[in-house]
Amino acid sequence: VSATALHPLDAATELSGPADSPVRTGRTSDAYWTFVGPFGGISAATALRAVLEHPGREGDPIAITVNFCAPIARGEFAVHTRRARANRSSQHWLVEFRQGESDEAVLTASIVTAARRESWSHQTAKAPALPAIETMTAMDNKRSLPWVAHYDFRFVEGLPQMSAETHDPPRSPRSVLWLSDHEPRTLDALSLLALGDAFFGRIFQVIGRIPPFGTVSMTTHFHASGDELAAHGSGALAAVADSHVFHRSYCDQSVELYGRGGQLFATSTQIAYFKA
Amino acid sequence: VSATALHPLDAATELSGPADSPVRTGRTSDAYWTFVGPFGGISAATALRAVLEHPGREGDPIAITVNFCAPIARGEFAVHTRRARANRSSQHWLVEFRQGESDEAVLTASIVTAARRESWSHQTAKAPALPAIETMTAMDNKRSLPWVAHYDFRFVEGLPQMSAETHDPPRSPRSVLWLSDHEPRTLDALSLLALGDAFFGRIFQVIGRIPPFGTVSMTTHFHASGDELAAHGSGALAAVADSHVFHRSYCDQSVELYGRGGQLFATSTQIAYFKA
Repeated sequence: VSATALHPLDAATELSGPADSPVRTGRTSDAYWTFVGPFGGISAATALRAVLEHPGREGDPIAITVNFCAPIARGEFAVHTRRARANRSSQHWLVEFRQGESDEAVLTASIVTAARRESWSHQTAKAPALPAIETMTAMDNKRSLPWVAHYDFRFVEGLPQMSAETHDPPRSPRSVLWLSDHEPRTLDALSLLALGDAFFGRIFQVIGRIPPFGTVSMTTHFHASGDELAAHGSGALAAVADSHVFHRSYCDQSVELYGRGGQLFATSTQIAYFKA
Repeated sequence: VSATALHPLDAATELSGPADSPVRTGRTSDAYWTFVGPFGGISAATALRAVLEHPGREGDPIAITVNFCAPIARGEFAVHTRRARANRSSQHWLVEFRQGESDEAVLTASIVTAARRESWSHQTAKAPALPAIETMTAMDNKRSLPWVAHYDFRFVEGLPQMSAETHDPPRSPRSVLWLSDHEPRTLDALSLLALGDAFFGRIFQVIGRIPPFGTVSMTTHFHASGDELAAHGSGALAAVADSHVFHRSYCDQSVELYGRGGQLFATSTQIAYFKA
């Protein structure tokens, strides 16, 4: 595979250095740039990739928490990867990105991997009822920040609409949409993780403008095995995003991502800083 | 204050060694014992306490993720605390419990603290409508595991009912209740964090029996400042617990905890192993 054949997500999350090394090198991607740093979903996927590529890793990712400690500057960063614990059927990993002359942490992550054995199965969460994707218009994703162009958004509800004046009363933080990689790519844990961050800050649509805003911590739980994600293929996911509260300069948001047959593939929650 | 005057939660989360030391000592509490180790809410609160007591800590806790790597054996454990990043108004901390001759990690945690400045405030999540607490009967909390006796549960919906046969069809994973410390204690981030884990595994009430089960990772987001929690006092919280899915030997559960005036104080999500 030549470098030019790589999907943008695979190119943006590449690491150099031996896969079993405790310190590898990543680099930011201009293709996924956002306001003041790389798209958080790509940074998270890079941390996960460091673990998934490690020869000591066993099992599928179950849970990941990424703490965005500081804006990542354009260029290279060191990726420190450590397995804190290995059990018979689960593992606990810690990842830290460091950057700059001071070698300070700019991102930390904890990742749990585990064998997903067959079991009793029961899903109470329901995928939203969406119109067929072919009948819907994709949001114009070319006129916004670079990262936005890598995703296809087809909003059924809660299209973010910016306004000259703050929405009064505030609008609902809920969005329901079809969401997918713009350039088709078979779903895996890396792309699913990034898709879980491919939502506009809920506060934007609630107040109708973009205040200073940044995700501080994001936790994603994976509810499907790698096999199930691959079987979904490259089709769009049915997605729901919502918030509970905006208070004292922090707000939350949660997302659900559903795949083929309405299977819940992942849930993700974030807490973010805002100034408004 | 003599040792005997300590609230059980304060006694159970005590750490010895200087508060600014990178390694302190904690110990498990028989008072909060559960199946094969200490109650996870107390372990989480112990990790948070190590950070909150550190003289270098600034701000209120915003987010904590605790990964339960292995059962904690009865007795002492080393608490390693490190500040990975300090910004002007937020900090990122990492905590690790290690135990045994191998000094292996049994718990890891990441904790974000931050200044909670006044801001625009808007809560879309609604506290459940509950009957007045005085009109409700407390669940018998004396006949179960030790940790259960430290909490008062008044269920409005979703009282876990064990059965000789697996519930068929499965029951709802949702519970709605008044929840509080059994021995009154003014609410703070430590008790709120532990309360966020004071829920019976959702799978118990869904299938009506207790299969092998254990939380692997728990993430709690705090939505109120320390002042607001203290102003709530020692009254019960209105609590809602639910799950999205049980699949391939892992399941999730999420909780919302509301205080005085229906203010959302915390949301928490877990992913847990089960064998069924």
